[in-house]
Amino acid sequence: MRKQPYKIYVLRIGHRPERDKRVTTHVGLVARAFGADGIFIDYADNHVFNSLVKIVNLWGGPFTVEVGVNPLKMVREWKEHGGEVIHLTMYGLNLPDVINEIKNSSKDKLIIVGAKKVPKIYYLLADWNVAIGNQPHSEIAALAVFLEKLTDGWVFNSVFNNAKLKVIPSARGKKIVKL
Amino acid sequence: MRKQPYKIYVLRIGHRPERDKRVTTHVGLVARAFGADGIFIDYADNHVFNSLVKIVNLWGGPFTVEVGVNPLKMVREWKEHGGEVIHLTMYGLNLPDVINEIKNSSKDKLIIVGAKKVPKIYYLLADWNVAIGNQPHSEIAALAVFLEKLTDGWVFNSVFNNAKLKVIPSARGKKIVKL
Repeated sequence: MRKQPYKIYVLRIGHRPERDKRVTTHVGLVARAFGADGIFIDYADNHVFNSLVKIVNLWGGPFTVEVGVNPLKMVREWKEHGGEVIHLTMYGLNLPDVINEIKNSSKDKLIIVGAKKVPKIYYLLADWNVAIGNQPHSEIAALAVFLEKLTDGWVFNSVFNNAKLKVIPSARGKKIVKL
Repeated sequence: MRKQPYKIYVLRIGHRPERDKRVTTHVGLVARAFGADGIFIDYADNHVFNSLVKIVNLWGGPFTVEVGVNPLKMVREWKEHGGEVIHLTMYGLNLPDVINEIKNSSKDKLIIVGAKKVPKIYYLLADWNVAIGNQPHSEIAALAVFLEKLTDGWVFNSVFNNAKLKVIPSARGKKIVKL
């Protein structure tokens, strides 16, 4: 289990089923592998939902997947309940300048990652707009690096419950154990 | 410029034009933003090529893009010329156990990221098979975290030449300067 005292959830907004299936699936897999407690996706994409749940069933949890959420309502309620909202964007403050303050706050964290252009309201509602460098790259990469820093590298020592499969690290080839 | 004395290139293998365009484009953008010198892609996908070159033209370089390379020939020649090959895979040795040795070697580095299942020959030819945690997630995330560690966070202090656009980090909203 992570040592951080707060919950970490990812909110994927602007998901377009016709083009974002694979990228959103990667976002969900990264959220799980890097220590988030779950992901919310605005569009009810059953294909993405099933892909992620299948991974949780095989490789373990806990990790929750919820699709078809109203993202603006969720962000507002998250803040009303005392949580803080972090929006990952190339336009934000650079991570090294803000990560310690974010890490040291004990509030539950909702991390927004956008697919298409993110509406301005989210920039205003977010407690933090954070850039992983200020160059164009990938929301998948941004989420991975942000979570790796936030959790002090939990990904490298991760533990999952009820896994059916586990990898044994190997210099050459593939070693998988069935549990 | 990076302080590392070696070249860093990314080799994308197994690219399928009908389904990997966006993920491979993200791989290329991450390679550039996180300090690689260029990317090689096995399949000659002009759409991906044009997307990446457009970013280099707008946001700066140097960063080279080459498509349609023979990946096995390239890996063999890379090694013959004294470079080392790092294959990112969830089955590999966990990054914290190998990163210092990789960082301290002065050899030029070719980093392989696979799309579809990677043939066994690459596991055997690679000097290092490296996992960013041993859970399923994303080659985009793996490349980002690996490069961030390899370059001591160059992404957060990156400098690009001949950029036409630059972001001014901002707590709220978007500030872009035309150079």
